[in-house]
Amino acid sequence: MKQHVRSLAPDGQRLLRDLEELASISEESADDGVNRVAFSEADRRGRTWVEARMEELGMEVRVDEAGNSIGVYPGMEPQFAPIALGSHTDSVPDGGKYDGALGVVAGLACVRALHEASVRLRHPVEVINFSAEEATIGGGTFGSRAMTGLLDAKVVDQVALDGRTVADHLAEAGLDPSSVVCAARPEGALAVYLELHAEQGDILSSAGVPVGTVEGIVGIRRYEATFEGFANHAGTTPMEGRRDALVSAAPFISAVRNVAISQGIVGTVGTLQIWPGSANVIPGRVTLSVETRGIREADLDGAEEELRGLAGESDAAFERVSYKPPVASDPLVLAALESSCEELGLEYKRMVSGAGHDAMCMAAITRQAMLFVPSRGGISHSPEEYTDPESCIAGAHILLASLLTLDADLNDSNGEES
Amino acid sequence: MKQHVRSLAPDGQRLLRDLEELASISEESADDGVNRVAFSEADRRGRTWVEARMEELGMEVRVDEAGNSIGVYPGMEPQFAPIALGSHTDSVPDGGKYDGALGVVAGLACVRALHEASVRLRHPVEVINFSAEEATIGGGTFGSRAMTGLLDAKVVDQVALDGRTVADHLAEAGLDPSSVVCAARPEGALAVYLELHAEQGDILSSAGVPVGTVEGIVGIRRYEATFEGFANHAGTTPMEGRRDALVSAAPFISAVRNVAISQGIVGTVGTLQIWPGSANVIPGRVTLSVETRGIREADLDGAEEELRGLAGESDAAFERVSYKPPVASDPLVLAALESSCEELGLEYKRMVSGAGHDAMCMAAITRQAMLFVPSRGGISHSPEEYTDPESCIAGAHILLASLLTLDADLNDSNGEES
Repeated sequence: MKQHVRSLAPDGQRLLRDLEELASISEESADDGVNRVAFSEADRRGRTWVEARMEELGMEVRVDEAGNSIGVYPGMEPQFAPIALGSHTDSVPDGGKYDGALGVVAGLACVRALHEASVRLRHPVEVINFSAEEATIGGGTFGSRAMTGLLDAKVVDQVALDGRTVADHLAEAGLDPSSVVCAARPEGALAVYLELHAEQGDILSSAGVPVGTVEGIVGIRRYEATFEGFANHAGTTPMEGRRDALVSAAPFISAVRNVAISQGIVGTVGTLQIWPGSANVIPGRVTLSVETRGIREADLDGAEEELRGLAGESDAAFERVSYKPPVASDPLVLAALESSCEELGLEYKRMVSGAGHDAMCMAAITRQAMLFVPSRGGISHSPEEYTDPESCIAGAHILLASLLTLDADLNDSNGEES
Repeated sequence: MKQHVRSLAPDGQRLLRDLEELASISEESADDGVNRVAFSEADRRGRTWVEARMEELGMEVRVDEAGNSIGVYPGMEPQFAPIALGSHTDSVPDGGKYDGALGVVAGLACVRALHEASVRLRHPVEVINFSAEEATIGGGTFGSRAMTGLLDAKVVDQVALDGRTVADHLAEAGLDPSSVVCAARPEGALAVYLELHAEQGDILSSAGVPVGTVEGIVGIRRYEATFEGFANHAGTTPMEGRRDALVSAAPFISAVRNVAISQGIVGTVGTLQIWPGSANVIPGRVTLSVETRGIREADLDGAEEELRGLAGESDAAFERVSYKPPVASDPLVLAALESSCEELGLEYKRMVSGAGHDAMCMAAITRQAMLFVPSRGGISHSPEEYTDPESCIAGAHILLASLLTLDADLNDSNGEES
């Protein structure tokens, strides 16, 4: 690769202006947050804005059947599959400026650097703005699941956060609900997928490290535990005769934390309901949610076994209600990200993503890895979300450097390494 | 007292028929339960039925400003204050046949025994059917609080279980909401108050003892404890950085039980709310109710102090939200009940009432004590509530024998013992 290509850098100030401009496209928000809920009018305006930027950079733009916007910057070798840079521009209600948006404008910044230097790489470069990544509709990562064939066609019948069906939202955005599954691309359709994202946690921010390279995205297991007791008068039932479902559940709540720590994962009881739920009635039944997240199946299995055993000791039911397996990053892609950090003199921390991302789905059809930049105080899904300008620019720079490295190292249409 | 009076017994079969007849006066109930919620049309029909029975027994009947029905069977000594036998005929939604109703029909049975033997006692005998004892409206024991001057006039503005105000209910029952407080009777208006009630607990039923003499009614303290955490992403927040409000609350739930046991009282956490309450968000705030009940102030104080200390260790707020002090039975009245049991050859157990009753309020204006008969399996506030016929009849018999004893022993209009 020629040295002038190797030394390309994104236009940082333009990237920051793009972030601000995109943030200004929003429904009204009381807290000065960003409101671009998937398939809303503001979301569609945000997507149109991104598509216009793609076209300015000489990219060929299409919108697939799931509403994903795909811009293609042509490459020199027509038989090579594209290298994709992506994220999403939909937001949670009253969200922040960075979640998703940063990855998309950084992708644009990378292509802009190529375009302004009149450089074409060997591979085509795609910028993908996924639709409906947030869980406001159809359970989240809607667009990337559709693109990777992971979406169940029946999801369009589900009810979204606002009470209307997913199909209604799709139709309002000009999409045909019955064609969503046609957005699927085959394995190998891309040579690699890279995603820059704000961390949405406090690991980098508290460690003072500017960049995280993501070795994997945690698996997420959800359970429901049900403790049975006997609802009875809280005044006339002596302590020794009681079967109090909440008293049975209390040590289990503590155990979820302890088991998670001992397995090196995270574990949370986030919801709990009591029946009948009156101050003067002994709890007759308690149901609670347990969520565990970890990068290693064995840790999740170990925690599950321990928790099932503890629940059993209290005669509680313990049912797994959902599972998304962990996704490991591709070692070659991770190595490219880390060598780029070193090349640019940026300290990095290899870490795990505790949250789900579009990259998790993209692993089904291509090599992938993610890059994190710090979220101040770990705050996310809030107008208070903040990543400092230097980190945003550094993230885009590493993304570009990694794109150049991978373009040089990967050689065929199936993304096999050279 | 003449021997033919001393040997009077209630008509047990008539008492059982009265119980059944009263139970048949009910709104529709899916579970074949009794639905006579306070001030409902069915409740008013039940009250009218009781008033008709009173009149058949030569009693003078009046309904006071709070809706209490009072029947007076005249005595021989006009200066003596009446001895009252009472309870209530309103029910919880889908309640049972015995709660309250047994005490009222037993009162009728006692007067019927006198009436049919053409006996008048020295004291007038009142049968009181209190209004709205159940907590469906105005917090419960509505009629007895009004009669004893314990009712706050503002209670009529409260919202009842069905969403309408107490004033609306009163007006619909033909009562003037602004006059409710006029039902108050002065201290000494009655010589004594006796109440027979189903236990609503499992103490007699599990011990196989047919009668309980109530030495006191527990004090009830209610608290709200609030545990603060920091709501954050359940995937991206490491275990060591968490402030999980539910994890803080869990040992406190166990402690409420342990503290209650160590103080010899009962303690219950019956409600718990989590904010924001999502499976993938760390609980940021938990509020829970604590209720303690005990017969000795010192035990309740000790538990309060321990729980406040434990809450403080978790930086939780711990606020007392209500308190009804314990009420000790009058020793003379308790002795009359117990000597009647011995006279009739019935085993009894001296016990504490864990539930509130009209008798608790009546203690403000007169001597009082209660008599319990077993509730099978401790079940109450349910169509499954059951007291066997022998126990119902035995309870009425002890009530009558105690009435005769107290009529002989008490001598003046203020209820002073001879």
